[in-house]
Amino acid sequence: MKQVVTFGEVMMRLSPPLNYRLSQAASLDVTYGGGDANVAAALAQMGVPAAHVSAFPANELGYAAASHLRRYGVDTTHCLFTEGHRLGLYFLEVGASLRPSRIVYDRAESAFAHLDPAAFNWDEILKNAGWLHWTGITPAISAAAAQAIADAIAAARRLGLTVSADVNYRRNLWQYGQKAQDVMPALVAGCDIVVCTEGDADDLFGLQPAAAAPNSFSSMSEQLAQRFPQIKRVIATRRQTQSASHERICGLLWDQGEFFETPFYDISPVVDRIGGGDSFISGFIYGSHAYEDRAQALSFATIASALKHTIHGDINLVTPAEVEHLMQGNLTGRLLR
Amino acid sequence: MKQVVTFGEVMMRLSPPLNYRLSQAASLDVTYGGGDANVAAALAQMGVPAAHVSAFPANELGYAAASHLRRYGVDTTHCLFTEGHRLGLYFLEVGASLRPSRIVYDRAESAFAHLDPAAFNWDEILKNAGWLHWTGITPAISAAAAQAIADAIAAARRLGLTVSADVNYRRNLWQYGQKAQDVMPALVAGCDIVVCTEGDADDLFGLQPAAAAPNSFSSMSEQLAQRFPQIKRVIATRRQTQSASHERICGLLWDQGEFFETPFYDISPVVDRIGGGDSFISGFIYGSHAYEDRAQALSFATIASALKHTIHGDINLVTPAEVEHLMQGNLTGRLLR
Amino acid sequence: MKQVVTFGEVMMRLSPPLNYRLSQAASLDVTYGGGDANVAAALAQMGVPAAHVSAFPANELGYAAASHLRRYGVDTTHCLFTEGHRLGLYFLEVGASLRPSRIVYDRAESAFAHLDPAAFNWDEILKNAGWLHWTGITPAISAAAAQAIADAIAAARRLGLTVSADVNYRRNLWQYGQKAQDVMPALVAGCDIVVCTEGDADDLFGLQPAAAAPNSFSSMSEQLAQRFPQIKRVIATRRQTQSASHERICGLLWDQGEFFETPFYDISPVVDRIGGGDSFISGFIYGSHAYEDRAQALSFATIASALKHTIHGDINLVTPAEVEHLMQGNLTGRLLR
Amino acid sequence: MKQVVTFGEVMMRLSPPLNYRLSQAASLDVTYGGGDANVAAALAQMGVPAAHVSAFPANELGYAAASHLRRYGVDTTHCLFTEGHRLGLYFLEVGASLRPSRIVYDRAESAFAHLDPAAFNWDEILKNAGWLHWTGITPAISAAAAQAIADAIAAARRLGLTVSADVNYRRNLWQYGQKAQDVMPALVAGCDIVVCTEGDADDLFGLQPAAAAPNSFSSMSEQLAQRFPQIKRVIATRRQTQSASHERICGLLWDQGEFFETPFYDISPVVDRIGGGDSFISGFIYGSHAYEDRAQALSFATIASALKHTIHGDINLVTPAEVEHLMQGNLTGRLLR
Amino acid sequence: MKQVVTFGEVMMRLSPPLNYRLSQAASLDVTYGGGDANVAAALAQMGVPAAHVSAFPANELGYAAASHLRRYGVDTTHCLFTEGHRLGLYFLEVGASLRPSRIVYDRAESAFAHLDPAAFNWDEILKNAGWLHWTGITPAISAAAAQAIADAIAAARRLGLTVSADVNYRRNLWQYGQKAQDVMPALVAGCDIVVCTEGDADDLFGLQPAAAAPNSFSSMSEQLAQRFPQIKRVIATRRQTQSASHERICGLLWDQGEFFETPFYDISPVVDRIGGGDSFISGFIYGSHAYEDRAQALSFATIASALKHTIHGDINLVTPAEVEHLMQGNLTGRLLR
Amino acid sequence: MKQVVTFGEVMMRLSPPLNYRLSQAASLDVTYGGGDANVAAALAQMGVPAAHVSAFPANELGYAAASHLRRYGVDTTHCLFTEGHRLGLYFLEVGASLRPSRIVYDRAESAFAHLDPAAFNWDEILKNAGWLHWTGITPAISAAAAQAIADAIAAARRLGLTVSADVNYRRNLWQYGQKAQDVMPALVAGCDIVVCTEGDADDLFGLQPAAAAPNSFSSMSEQLAQRFPQIKRVIATRRQTQSASHERICGLLWDQGEFFETPFYDISPVVDRIGGGDSFISGFIYGSHAYEDRAQALSFATIASALKHTIHGDINLVTPAEVEHLMQGNLTGRLLR
Repeated sequence: MKQVVTFGEVMMRLSPPLNYRLSQAASLDVTYGGGDANVAAALAQMGVPAAHVSAFPANELGYAAASHLRRYGVDTTHCLFTEGHRLGLYFLEVGASLRPSRIVYDRAESAFAHLDPAAFNWDEILKNAGWLHWTGITPAISAAAAQAIADAIAAARRLGLTVSADVNYRRNLWQYGQKAQDVMPALVAGCDIVVCTEGDADDLFGLQPAAAAPNSFSSMSEQLAQRFPQIKRVIATRRQTQSASHERICGLLWDQGEFFETPFYDISPVVDRIGGGDSFISGFIYGSHAYEDRAQALSFATIASALKHTIHGDINLVTPAEVEHLMQGNLTGRLLR
Repeated sequence: MKQVVTFGEVMMRLSPPLNYRLSQAASLDVTYGGGDANVAAALAQMGVPAAHVSAFPANELGYAAASHLRRYGVDTTHCLFTEGHRLGLYFLEVGASLRPSRIVYDRAESAFAHLDPAAFNWDEILKNAGWLHWTGITPAISAAAAQAIADAIAAARRLGLTVSADVNYRRNLWQYGQKAQDVMPALVAGCDIVVCTEGDADDLFGLQPAAAAPNSFSSMSEQLAQRFPQIKRVIATRRQTQSASHERICGLLWDQGEFFETPFYDISPVVDRIGGGDSFISGFIYGSHAYEDRAQALSFATIASALKHTIHGDINLVTPAEVEHLMQGNLTGRLLR
Repeated sequence: MKQVVTFGEVMMRLSPPLNYRLSQAASLDVTYGGGDANVAAALAQMGVPAAHVSAFPANELGYAAASHLRRYGVDTTHCLFTEGHRLGLYFLEVGASLRPSRIVYDRAESAFAHLDPAAFNWDEILKNAGWLHWTGITPAISAAAAQAIADAIAAARRLGLTVSADVNYRRNLWQYGQKAQDVMPALVAGCDIVVCTEGDADDLFGLQPAAAAPNSFSSMSEQLAQRFPQIKRVIATRRQTQSASHERICGLLWDQGEFFETPFYDISPVVDRIGGGDSFISGFIYGSHAYEDRAQALSFATIASALKHTIHGDINLVTPAEVEHLMQGNLTGRLLR
Repeated sequence: MKQVVTFGEVMMRLSPPLNYRLSQAASLDVTYGGGDANVAAALAQMGVPAAHVSAFPANELGYAAASHLRRYGVDTTHCLFTEGHRLGLYFLEVGASLRPSRIVYDRAESAFAHLDPAAFNWDEILKNAGWLHWTGITPAISAAAAQAIADAIAAARRLGLTVSADVNYRRNLWQYGQKAQDVMPALVAGCDIVVCTEGDADDLFGLQPAAAAPNSFSSMSEQLAQRFPQIKRVIATRRQTQSASHERICGLLWDQGEFFETPFYDISPVVDRIGGGDSFISGFIYGSHAYEDRAQALSFATIASALKHTIHGDINLVTPAEVEHLMQGNLTGRLLR
Repeated sequence: MKQVVTFGEVMMRLSPPLNYRLSQAASLDVTYGGGDANVAAALAQMGVPAAHVSAFPANELGYAAASHLRRYGVDTTHCLFTEGHRLGLYFLEVGASLRPSRIVYDRAESAFAHLDPAAFNWDEILKNAGWLHWTGITPAISAAAAQAIADAIAAARRLGLTVSADVNYRRNLWQYGQKAQDVMPALVAGCDIVVCTEGDADDLFGLQPAAAAPNSFSSMSEQLAQRFPQIKRVIATRRQTQSASHERICGLLWDQGEFFETPFYDISPVVDRIGGGDSFISGFIYGSHAYEDRAQALSFATIASALKHTIHGDINLVTPAEVEHLMQGNLTGRLLR
Repeated sequence: MKQVVTFGEVMMRLSPPLNYRLSQAASLDVTYGGGDANVAAALAQMGVPAAHVSAFPANELGYAAASHLRRYGVDTTHCLFTEGHRLGLYFLEVGASLRPSRIVYDRAESAFAHLDPAAFNWDEILKNAGWLHWTGITPAISAAAAQAIADAIAAARRLGLTVSADVNYRRNLWQYGQKAQDVMPALVAGCDIVVCTEGDADDLFGLQPAAAAPNSFSSMSEQLAQRFPQIKRVIATRRQTQSASHERICGLLWDQGEFFETPFYDISPVVDRIGGGDSFISGFIYGSHAYEDRAQALSFATIASALKHTIHGDINLVTPAEVEHLMQGNLTGRLLR
């Protein structure tokens, strides 16, 4: 498979060990992640060449963040290191049972938010790539970031790449003066594949499933593809969250009119839910190349995401063989020697 | 709300990390707690002014214990630090699944057991307070401790405070020559609100629910209120313990003839069950002030206690807003960003 | 009870903390174990005199491994420390939910594999013992190891000891040129009690339960006892593995024609599944001496094994009193003060 | 002694364990501190009533920071918790030998920088206090912070408090448009005691010791007192830094014309050098009250500072008895039982 | 060499990690030790058969303490486990540089203090032993403990063992009503070898070195041998403590009139000074058997003690080969591959 | 600078935390390193493109080792992952003061030892490189490894690269049947720069400095250059090891007849001495490109090596700016803000 390129902010994640609260913590576990970088890293772990493009502060924290991505096989050649701004952080308290996990963001004024879109030569960056992936977080961060991803999408279309996006609408994030509803349509219009739920479609594009539709996801997807003709596939997970420690997920795929779904998979206990969605899309990118059968690709994506919930950190550290072992029905976690 | 004052022993708690056994431990996690101090600390976390009164040894351990309470917002101004005795300890092995958690107490000869009741000027200590809370552990420790809490209750009544008690009968603790059955009635007689189960009422006061009573808790409470006319409310939790890792609790309230109960709440996994009862009474004290509706107060107390089971240590580190988020039906622990 | 002697390899076990993957680990938890040594250690914890015989490299790692056994009460007097070879290792990733735990073995060329069978004077070693226990791992390691256990069994029979074996067939292990099917029968022929499942019996001895048998375990056991007339009892656990975090086990016993089984016990969460089988056999050895009633012995063994799943490390650190507390029906893990 | 009040920013400090670099760290040790808060906390540990005034973000991090101060006995009643900004952070790599410790600041846009000076009612805050202490860091952070400390000094003078300052000039910090040289003189003019080195006096006030002066510190101090007639005492430490692990310090005092100095004290190894200066001034405040003899006060301050270098974290966790034990000549660290 | 038997209390030791203070500690490192048990364990590490005799509480803590001794090779067969009392504890803060390490003892009412002297059958315990060692801590703990060691010494003399003692006078410990000056002489009278400094000899026996003596240690030793004719050798270390992190020690031996001393050895940094004296006497016991040359025995003892200062915990985990490597002049700690 | 390529084995390093001994360790810190890989990683940290070539087992351990190199910026594109062998390990106990650090190797039968020399296409691997570096460890491991490095050197010469070697003679390692004295000359003959001490030159090539030579290093170097005319520069460090915690080093350079040396640098305490030599040669490679002045290159190399002694792990995580800060005379480790 040709290289997959992702673009977006990488943050340091600081979390108390186990289920401690921040006010109790004598130390904080540190890792790094971001919605798009997590996709690149998961793909690299699966043997797919993957590069992440970002802007970091030129300090120990920025270098450490990039080093974390390289550790998991991501090419960071096109990352920028700039003076004068900071690395975004987020603090994560891991909940349990009926106590939710909580995130305190501390990402304002980051080097990424202040990136210079002109500093990325996308034709050069994407010249050997086959796929570009981005998330709706990126254009929410700053006008500069929105411009950069718009440039990247334009170049990708020019160069014939597949483009995917996780639309991932988070109202709180859009604080630089533009509205998601104004920015996102032009970006989504350049995509072949999107991760989108009915909620996102309503919030971002004002699309509601037809009232009479037997399948709200298909109905939403149809409308999405009508509005944005480049879109050929829409995917999403459904969650039946039982508690902070017990999750149930299934995968949905609308593919040019056809609908697929997987059974629900139980994850109990959940080790780390961050990056669960990112691992679904990286699984789908891998699966799309590995399998003719789209149902298998969806199954791969969904099980990959389920496995992510058992892995510490933002990144899905699993191999294709591990996912396929579960696809073959080995879902009870028996010891492997 | 006016200050809540609690009185009782504070111990150092030493427990192997995770589910290790004491014989395996290369280090022990250390925290501090006590049935009444936990109530003060939980209230302080909820924004209620709270003071704890105790006696500590005048050594590094005693200072560390008091410092732990201050950390969580408790006023320790009236604590005594005395020479010649020790800080009580307890060792906790955290069980899992069908293996129970176990406590090895090492609390004999503590500074608290040897306190001088005359050293506490309760009229001064309680002069700005609105509420006094104590537990049945305190009079079990020594004649001196029993005298001190008797003095405190008398002063509280004099000054018009509300008095609450968790009767919490532990047979093993009463070893200084007096019997709970002889000591407790006079103390409970001074209380407005008690935490008491049918078992406690039988053991301590020889009260059994009427055989024909449709509701044993109400029947027991009626009798309690008859015996001790000062008592207006009786509360308790019911537990359906599934395993060391899975608890189910509901809350009960008898309020001058009326009976209230909550649904059962599932806690799976249990992170730390110590202090579950203390968080119920602190929740009820908070709830009694925050809500007109007694059912809401009970709901607040019960959910606060459920949340405590997900928090490391003896103290319930949750805010009212966190409890109320669950009261609004958000019981599945979805990630909060 | 007279001393129980076990013989077999002891390995260092290295595992990332919590559920981390090896590629993430900044440190590895270290413990030591082996299928037979685990039996000796569990018995020593139960107050039964127990000795383990093995060969270790004469270096810090070998000494540390032996020291670990002594810590838990095992007599290591007859262990050899030899130059020129290594301590076998295994790396364990602890899974969760639908992600399996995984073991990477690194045990080739160990001091144990290269032991000199003539270096063990079994008549001396066993002179005060009452029981010899071994596992099918040992003859799989090398011809020398197979010879040593054959010598031990011969001496044990000579001296009138009870001999037990966990046949524990692992195809991958047999790599020195002999086949299990050729080696095991002569060894098993010397045993009074074996742990054996229908799968093992088929793989090792070509025995299948009679098609019409109402009870496949009894049918298998009958045939085993016919083939190897020394065998009087056959035991095994049945597992209904729900996930890497949730196990269900019951115990089976065939005793000279009679069949016994226990209810299933739920273990959720599983803390550490390694050594679950070893704790079943050590529980059965203890139970066989402690109880007249064979059903009680089986119950003790099964609950001991269930408890092992809640204990970190290879060794079952529980006392008989703890097992018996559960045998009396206390299966909900209520806090013990 | 009456209450000492300090005012200034408190930051979260994140540092890799031991001497690890940030790029290696899997976890970061977390503590909290600030130049003035450290003074309050050290005084509280010495039994002096101490309050710290600051502005924190109204989130888990801000609460945790305040909780840290309370833990060590500081009154935080007058701290503000405000929405919309962040807690300042700093990342500390602890050096060793010839490798320096390094700090990466991440404190821009903090709640403290954005405080509202009008929100502090200094007449109320200081009404029971006897001493106000501040550092030159505070007016460097923002115009608002400079205004707040100016208000505090004015109130302190009005109410007859002693005012002390650590002028602590850090050129990099002054980035909000004002210059230290313009802001500091008016603030220092309100002080009775200042910590000031010859370098600071030159940089901030353009004062150089007279060329012929036999004692540059005295010469500098004379000029300072001439310029700012309120100043009666000037103190400082001299450092002969041998390496990141080996420090030598002595204390200097100019007191209305008289000069005092201590011997040099060796600290090898240095455990934590952060807060070394803060512990000198807190030691001097304590010593000024505890001893008639100014040389003793200086000795107390210098040894307190030396001891701080052996304590983890920003705060000097030592008692007066511990400092006095060294003042009596016990400088070789012999075990105390 | 025949078995060495030691007798005395074993305590749990709890210390904050690194150089943290107790008030900061979120966990405490746990180990176990006692002056005499440390001697047995060090000898076992050196390949000498060694047994320790003690009394422990019959609870998890007592079992863990005994298990710690077995781990390091000590025979615990003759230890008692009794109901009703506790395991003594001590809390250790590790100092650094000019900050001393501090111990907070919490050892009152231990199972050892309450032992029954009649429960030890010394003729049986010592029947295969060649050496008995005890310390002056033991008779300080209680009359019962003093009686037990008196019985042991009597039996040892009867059976022809060598008896050694570390007189180790600690005034604070003698609190049960007897004075060391009354108890110790009869015990020391039964010893062949004693560790004793001039200070101890003065405090305990009122012996002062002759004013004109060129060698105070020899003079003291002569008098000791005159008073207690059984004594043939007196040993001690001299310490030139530079700081809590830098120790210098040399060894002294008076052997029936002859005097030996070693050079001073520098230990910088000191990792753990607890047990430094115990490792000197265990080194001397080993050296006395291993070498004809008494100077070599002394050298071995002193270097063994120096090495102990670099080992965590109370026990000297070094082999004879490691000590001898330094005796051959390899004192610069060059890496061994 | 063009890419530097290194070739050699990478091992997992397991060491107890702090100064614990292996027999005490409850966990082992894990990192990865190898003499040549350390050079590549240090160069990558300095901004020099660097690739490491090696053979790893195709299992979690092999992937984790390669991932470690990537984390620190090393290109691992040409590494092989092969079935059937293991990752070499070494266990490191970190000494202190007069106790040496100790290594227990467990590297036999590694994937690297069993590599297939034909699997490396050196013309391809080196096509964009400017420098090849290797160490004398590599040809000591196996005939296959020796063949591979011979092939690499030949290709490097063919392609005009600079070739450097650290001859690093370790007698114990040469165990596959060939002698270093027979293998090394042909390899060294292809080098431009070698790290070689007088001891190595004697052991490997039978060269002794001329008896009358005023400078033994220059004399040795002259002879080396005469024997191997390709050699133009010889470098080495001199060590004055004071203790396991205190090292002194200086750097030596012989450059085509000219001799340079640096002052001695003190490192006290030593944090981690592993890789000290590797950081000297990586520093020299960097310095040779960065500075015209060879004395400066030598100074850079020596200070880089001194700094390595303060960094945990095998790899020198320092930037050129950090080294240059010390070169400018800032040797006292003053805090950098």
